[in-house]
Amino acid sequence: MKRPLAPLFATFVAAGIVALPSAAIAADPAVLRDAALKDDIAFDILEGLTTEVGQRLAATPAEARAREWAVTELRRAGFANVHVETFTMPVWQRGEETAEIMSPFPQKLVVAALGNSSATPAGGITAEIAAFDGLDALVKAPAEAVRGKIVFVNHHMAAQQDGGSYGEIGAIRRSGPSIASKKGALAIVIRSIGTDHHRVPHTGVQNWIDGARPIPAAALSVPDAEQLARVLDRGKPVTLHLTIGAGMAGTGTSGNVIAEVPGRDPKGGIVLVGGHLDSWDLGTGTIDDASGLAIVTAAARRIMASGQPRRAIRIVWFGAEEPGGFGGDAYAKAHVGEKHVLVGESDSGADRVWKVDFTAADPKAPLTVRIALALAPLGITRGNAPAHGGTDVAPIARVTGAPVIDLHQDATRYFDIHHTADDTLDKVDPEQLRQNVAAWTALLAVAAEDGEELGPVAPASAR
Amino acid sequence: MKRPLAPLFATFVAAGIVALPSAAIAADPAVLRDAALKDDIAFDILEGLTTEVGQRLAATPAEARAREWAVTELRRAGFANVHVETFTMPVWQRGEETAEIMSPFPQKLVVAALGNSSATPAGGITAEIAAFDGLDALVKAPAEAVRGKIVFVNHHMAAQQDGGSYGEIGAIRRSGPSIASKKGALAIVIRSIGTDHHRVPHTGVQNWIDGARPIPAAALSVPDAEQLARVLDRGKPVTLHLTIGAGMAGTGTSGNVIAEVPGRDPKGGIVLVGGHLDSWDLGTGTIDDASGLAIVTAAARRIMASGQPRRAIRIVWFGAEEPGGFGGDAYAKAHVGEKHVLVGESDSGADRVWKVDFTAADPKAPLTVRIALALAPLGITRGNAPAHGGTDVAPIARVTGAPVIDLHQDATRYFDIHHTADDTLDKVDPEQLRQNVAAWTALLAVAAEDGEELGPVAPASAR
Repeated sequence: MKRPLAPLFATFVAAGIVALPSAAIAADPAVLRDAALKDDIAFDILEGLTTEVGQRLAATPAEARAREWAVTELRRAGFANVHVETFTMPVWQRGEETAEIMSPFPQKLVVAALGNSSATPAGGITAEIAAFDGLDALVKAPAEAVRGKIVFVNHHMAAQQDGGSYGEIGAIRRSGPSIASKKGALAIVIRSIGTDHHRVPHTGVQNWIDGARPIPAAALSVPDAEQLARVLDRGKPVTLHLTIGAGMAGTGTSGNVIAEVPGRDPKGGIVLVGGHLDSWDLGTGTIDDASGLAIVTAAARRIMASGQPRRAIRIVWFGAEEPGGFGGDAYAKAHVGEKHVLVGESDSGADRVWKVDFTAADPKAPLTVRIALALAPLGITRGNAPAHGGTDVAPIARVTGAPVIDLHQDATRYFDIHHTADDTLDKVDPEQLRQNVAAWTALLAVAAEDGEELGPVAPASAR
Repeated sequence: MKRPLAPLFATFVAAGIVALPSAAIAADPAVLRDAALKDDIAFDILEGLTTEVGQRLAATPAEARAREWAVTELRRAGFANVHVETFTMPVWQRGEETAEIMSPFPQKLVVAALGNSSATPAGGITAEIAAFDGLDALVKAPAEAVRGKIVFVNHHMAAQQDGGSYGEIGAIRRSGPSIASKKGALAIVIRSIGTDHHRVPHTGVQNWIDGARPIPAAALSVPDAEQLARVLDRGKPVTLHLTIGAGMAGTGTSGNVIAEVPGRDPKGGIVLVGGHLDSWDLGTGTIDDASGLAIVTAAARRIMASGQPRRAIRIVWFGAEEPGGFGGDAYAKAHVGEKHVLVGESDSGADRVWKVDFTAADPKAPLTVRIALALAPLGITRGNAPAHGGTDVAPIARVTGAPVIDLHQDATRYFDIHHTADDTLDKVDPEQLRQNVAAWTALLAVAAEDGEELGPVAPASAR
């Protein structure tokens, strides 16, 4: 951090927001919310973590440095019970990665390996491209159209406020490599799952499913994928040389960093808010997901500075989300016995919140209305879809029946940057970041103080 | 090309633009100009060259492939006297390039070597950063502040319609390496001379001046330079590891590709329009400068299709502009004895033309008014600065006293992309490209038919 974070309480007193700390939260949610629209805490956390640590690939020394940074920062901010809960997991690491059209028009392309990609032999491989427009085309292709070739899968993803097509088109990344492998492909390159036009490929996880043998799997940047498509459109066979040095590197340690604002009611249970500390290795993990950590942590600090809430607020900076939610699973296993009264996660960047969804025992419960009303002045509308909570908090919700809240962020720009080298601090709009802090502050001010119970929620299978 | 280019004349006849070819240009400049607003020829050239050749670094096999492509294309389009005029020059090539902050906050940065950079030893160098905000700060620094260190020069370039600050701030790239070398720096990294925020460094040429010993010289992407500045702001010594594999690679061949629309008046002289065929190696050389070639060539084809102009139109696709205008110098040497009645060049991207400037014996000559009036309906204003003509055509203007025209393009986006890997086809707005074709078509329709002489112009020293 460039600026040491002075105890926030003093700031609040000086600003006349609170008189003195009391047992309960001293200001009304609207006052806390509106004060948060001038928040600088979140940007300071964001700037600090992304500058002083940078990328934080799961289970690597960089992620370990990030945990140390987090513990120091959260203790200095005055949180209670700051500690790390470690777990072990397989480690995947990137290596050399090059791609080059050898014929008919020799030229280099920009690629990045996908998570769990295997390596090519040291000198790379050279093979003809078998091209498919969309995953269905690959699924329907006979194995003889694929065997011994390098598969290329193209698509046509467009930016959307709700980021909706990431689910559908993202299947190319998640399933394409296994499907290509099982049909005998030597390797696969996909068009990046992204909506930008820069030479920065979008990495991301994929897993080898149904016994698929690992093969080299990589993403071309969007301009490179469009270039390859134009070359293929000429109708001549296209030969690609691909070198991927990525691979598994044994077992490593990751961990969740936990901090709390203690509640004054021992039976009040926990409001859990989080984000993930690990990031992909190409950028600095700013919008994915230092911004989420910064937002929920700033909100919790603002509540803490205003007094002691009825319920405990627990912040979790989850480890190893990107490679498959290892941190969320470890948390759920360790904390299944605790009373979680509401769980939520910020993991869609730093742009404004536009919608709130709930999963509660009674979807119309008055507390959900009170939360929605506290959010409405920020331009946040109440949706009617069930909340999912994201990769990190979904497991604890599943095993405990905890109610879930989703504060959906505007994802229009998110998939321009997501999982790329371009995930850097300059992409954050400080005003939109503050709106996020205000939203989470309002949420915590209501939910951590209110006595109404929203759960437990029946398992999804029983709903 | 995806679409074979049918003889354009047939298209014009079919469209009712011309009845039959006549000795003179058959349509009036306004008609030809407005028809060019529906041009597809330029985009086809642009798509073809950037797809089928891609990057075209000067004096490399890629540039040679580009010349072959050009000759085939220009002959197929029906131009006369299509030929290559070769010349030899020193070759510079890129190699490995990595940068990594070793302390206090270990992280990789994205760099690209600058033209004529030398290499580090194979394993790279590690040294403390000596940071300067702007070139003046480096100039004023005592040698002991620089000696044995890696210099970093930051700046604050902003986008401008006229691209004005490229001249001033670009001095960091052009002169910074030599100044750093002469003060004993081990190497220099500059903030890219660019206005974007993507992890794509801007390369570009620099020359070792005043006997400066070559050192490794590279550009950080703008986000990386901002990150390094934030790290430096913490006030601790910052150590960088830098590996640059670039260097000189002997002598190679480049060349100018020339094509003509013959004039019907043997004494009419030549209207010379051009752009440059070579590009930096990181992108596909789309806005710099396949678009310039495409624009002037499409305009000349449209004139050719409408009849035979009084004066010859000569198109030159110059070689080796980027490393220092080798093609322009070679052309001037070879063609100093020919009568050039007007010279102009398109080399600032593919966005719209907004201003026209002239250099003529009489700056108020009626022909300049007629040209300006033909351009005005395209939203092009007449400026009052002398025209320079760009790196490629300035030498022939200088040695012959040829009048010069500048059709200034909107450069607001240009330095987002210039000399980066992001210089790809997707950056081109086809509508703005067409406006350029219309402008050059109008210019040629007037200038190649009009009998008025604008020159010769006195040498700059005599003006």
